[in-house]
Amino acid sequence: MTRILRINRDRLWASLTELKQIGAYDDEATGLRGVRRLALTDADAEARRRCVGWMLEAGLEVRIDRIGNVYGTRPGRDRSLPCVLMGSHIDTVATGGAFDGTLGVLGGIEVMRTLNDAGAETLRDIEVGFFTEEEGVRFGTDMLGSAVTAGRIPLDHALKLTDQDGKTVLDELVRIAFDGDAHERRPIPHAYIECHIEQGPILAGAGVDIGIVEGVQSISWQRLIIRGEAAHAGTTPIASRHDAGLVAASVVVMARQMCDSGEFGQLRATVGNFDLGVGQTNVVPHQATLTIDLRSPADDLMTAAEQHLAAYVDELAARHGVDVTWERMAKTAVVLFDPSIQDLLAATAEDLGLPSVRVMSGAGHDAQEIAAICPAAMVFVAGENGGVSHTPREYSSPEACGNGVDVLANAILRLADQA
Amino acid sequence: MTRILRINRDRLWASLTELKQIGAYDDEATGLRGVRRLALTDADAEARRRCVGWMLEAGLEVRIDRIGNVYGTRPGRDRSLPCVLMGSHIDTVATGGAFDGTLGVLGGIEVMRTLNDAGAETLRDIEVGFFTEEEGVRFGTDMLGSAVTAGRIPLDHALKLTDQDGKTVLDELVRIAFDGDAHERRPIPHAYIECHIEQGPILAGAGVDIGIVEGVQSISWQRLIIRGEAAHAGTTPIASRHDAGLVAASVVVMARQMCDSGEFGQLRATVGNFDLGVGQTNVVPHQATLTIDLRSPADDLMTAAEQHLAAYVDELAARHGVDVTWERMAKTAVVLFDPSIQDLLAATAEDLGLPSVRVMSGAGHDAQEIAAICPAAMVFVAGENGGVSHTPREYSSPEACGNGVDVLANAILRLADQA
Repeated sequence: MTRILRINRDRLWASLTELKQIGAYDDEATGLRGVRRLALTDADAEARRRCVGWMLEAGLEVRIDRIGNVYGTRPGRDRSLPCVLMGSHIDTVATGGAFDGTLGVLGGIEVMRTLNDAGAETLRDIEVGFFTEEEGVRFGTDMLGSAVTAGRIPLDHALKLTDQDGKTVLDELVRIAFDGDAHERRPIPHAYIECHIEQGPILAGAGVDIGIVEGVQSISWQRLIIRGEAAHAGTTPIASRHDAGLVAASVVVMARQMCDSGEFGQLRATVGNFDLGVGQTNVVPHQATLTIDLRSPADDLMTAAEQHLAAYVDELAARHGVDVTWERMAKTAVVLFDPSIQDLLAATAEDLGLPSVRVMSGAGHDAQEIAAICPAAMVFVAGENGGVSHTPREYSSPEACGNGVDVLANAILRLADQA
Repeated sequence: MTRILRINRDRLWASLTELKQIGAYDDEATGLRGVRRLALTDADAEARRRCVGWMLEAGLEVRIDRIGNVYGTRPGRDRSLPCVLMGSHIDTVATGGAFDGTLGVLGGIEVMRTLNDAGAETLRDIEVGFFTEEEGVRFGTDMLGSAVTAGRIPLDHALKLTDQDGKTVLDELVRIAFDGDAHERRPIPHAYIECHIEQGPILAGAGVDIGIVEGVQSISWQRLIIRGEAAHAGTTPIASRHDAGLVAASVVVMARQMCDSGEFGQLRATVGNFDLGVGQTNVVPHQATLTIDLRSPADDLMTAAEQHLAAYVDELAARHGVDVTWERMAKTAVVLFDPSIQDLLAATAEDLGLPSVRVMSGAGHDAQEIAAICPAAMVFVAGENGGVSHTPREYSSPEACGNGVDVLANAILRLADQA
């Protein structure tokens, strides 16, 4: 029988409760107390120091790298072997909650405490880390610290990124004294596991606390600018119109039809911006701008969806006599997590008596960067209120958080004893 | 053989050219010189004085009523008979041209000059008038002067209307000395004819200069506020969404389908406003506001169209789990012009060798107000550039204007000799 660890749920919850005081603000929209802890601000610095303090209290060796990522190491018996790594982030968006990212970091620290309480020895080193500027809200590039570590973004480029006041990442790292000496391209781990809230409704809908994450969807962001011709609503016959707003609306409807059709797999399409400029009730709109966010768990179906939409827009433009300009805002391919770690997580959950489902992540995570350098996977924890996130309404129960970190702890323990 | 008058086209054009200097401005959007002569401004006052001067030069008796409408009368042989009335307006929108409204007023003055040149005597008095604030741009109510005259809007209400600086109609009438003594409910005319540019492409498309206007379309303005729920574009399954933007876009597409279907006759639908608030590319929109402008030449088909759209929106709202609020912004019924005057206009055009077509007006006009108190109809004059109006690109050729005012002159002459 495999050894089973149980983390201290009260201690985990106490840590989550303590950290959410740092950067707390009163949110007008919800009437709730939220967390605003943008990367490398004073609030982030205070939260970093608190986490470092907890790491030191747990006896970990702490190091900080040149992009401000922080790691705490619990030594194993054979320190020449690659470590197993847990991690996530503690920076938040401007209207954040207490769980996004933070659960994975404080959960990792709680795993270390639990191992200490159990007097557990492991073959490999175990590390817990937090990565700089995962949200991308302050310096404009998300998953910044993990992307630098994995080599996708060069350190020099990252350090020069500026916030809206012109302050650079380097300036701010120095200012808060988190400009570490460790090389940003960290030693390659044996494996990486990130525990994170789901930020969606699928787990709650399935009645489970635990999701085994198969990968991160492909993301396509495009902007469409449609130029037609203004015309009098009363006097212009329908057939004479070049209605930019109608073309834009048709794109919105088609994007949804593509999702509903099943032809493009589990495509998700969202039009979050739709702008006619200063409209007039009785004037046919001459220009429309919209953004199209497409997500797909399959790169080939994403390509097919983009092509289908482009062909539809061409046909629409010809039919209505409008000009269309496409702008590519962002595009990332599907990242698939390591199947053997997924299976290990699923087996661990089963051993703990916790039902789980396999899900794709719709949002980006540090794990998708770290997956470039070692086998990686994620454990999702169910959220309440439909799984809302990036709002103070974000909430996962102590039970759900405890279950997720139990899965993390036991999976890490098994990986740390792999030869 | 009926007597045929021909107006002096050069003199008409010279008047149009002179009046467009008053309120002229350089339009940045078009690079053209436009006309900005909002009601009861200094520019409008100067244009009013110029028109009064021309009326007096033509030997007309001028009177001003209590809402600032101005009439010039050419006496007939039997002054006890109701007069025949020509008219329109000389106020413009902020980005206006030289023809909208002005053609009917200066055309009417030119008819008077032509009658003088011909030494014509008529049985009835003939009057030419211009009505206050037809555009509604300054004080918010269009066809204000004619509506007061026809009794739809009480004088007291009209005089208290304010512009965006809080100035009332009465203040401004007094300031520019057009607060007349004549009763605003004018003597009932024998008939009313308004010559006006078409402001649309139908006449040019038919290859004619002259339109005989059958009436004014019904106009329905509604605002739709759709409240859904914000959600993460990546993590929220399609079936879990309450996408206010999608519902709004579906309404836009349906409104156009209703026009194309033929089921609602010659319905015209326009969505000129579509607002998602501050959108985010990766967030499902929680609220959408749009306006729907419907026009129909048939009241029953307008009712059917409104009902169809409302039922569709109810079905959409239920399907997507969103709340919808309708706000009625405006609604006017179809106004049908007097068939005998339409026939007289058509016969007159034919006698002048001018081909014409019957059309419904998509825009509102003073004639629809005056139609409430006497037989009324309109002559439309073709415009170039697709019939654009409310822009400095608005243009009707000297020939088209001359033809339109020739029809006006001869129809008025015939009406003025009717016993």
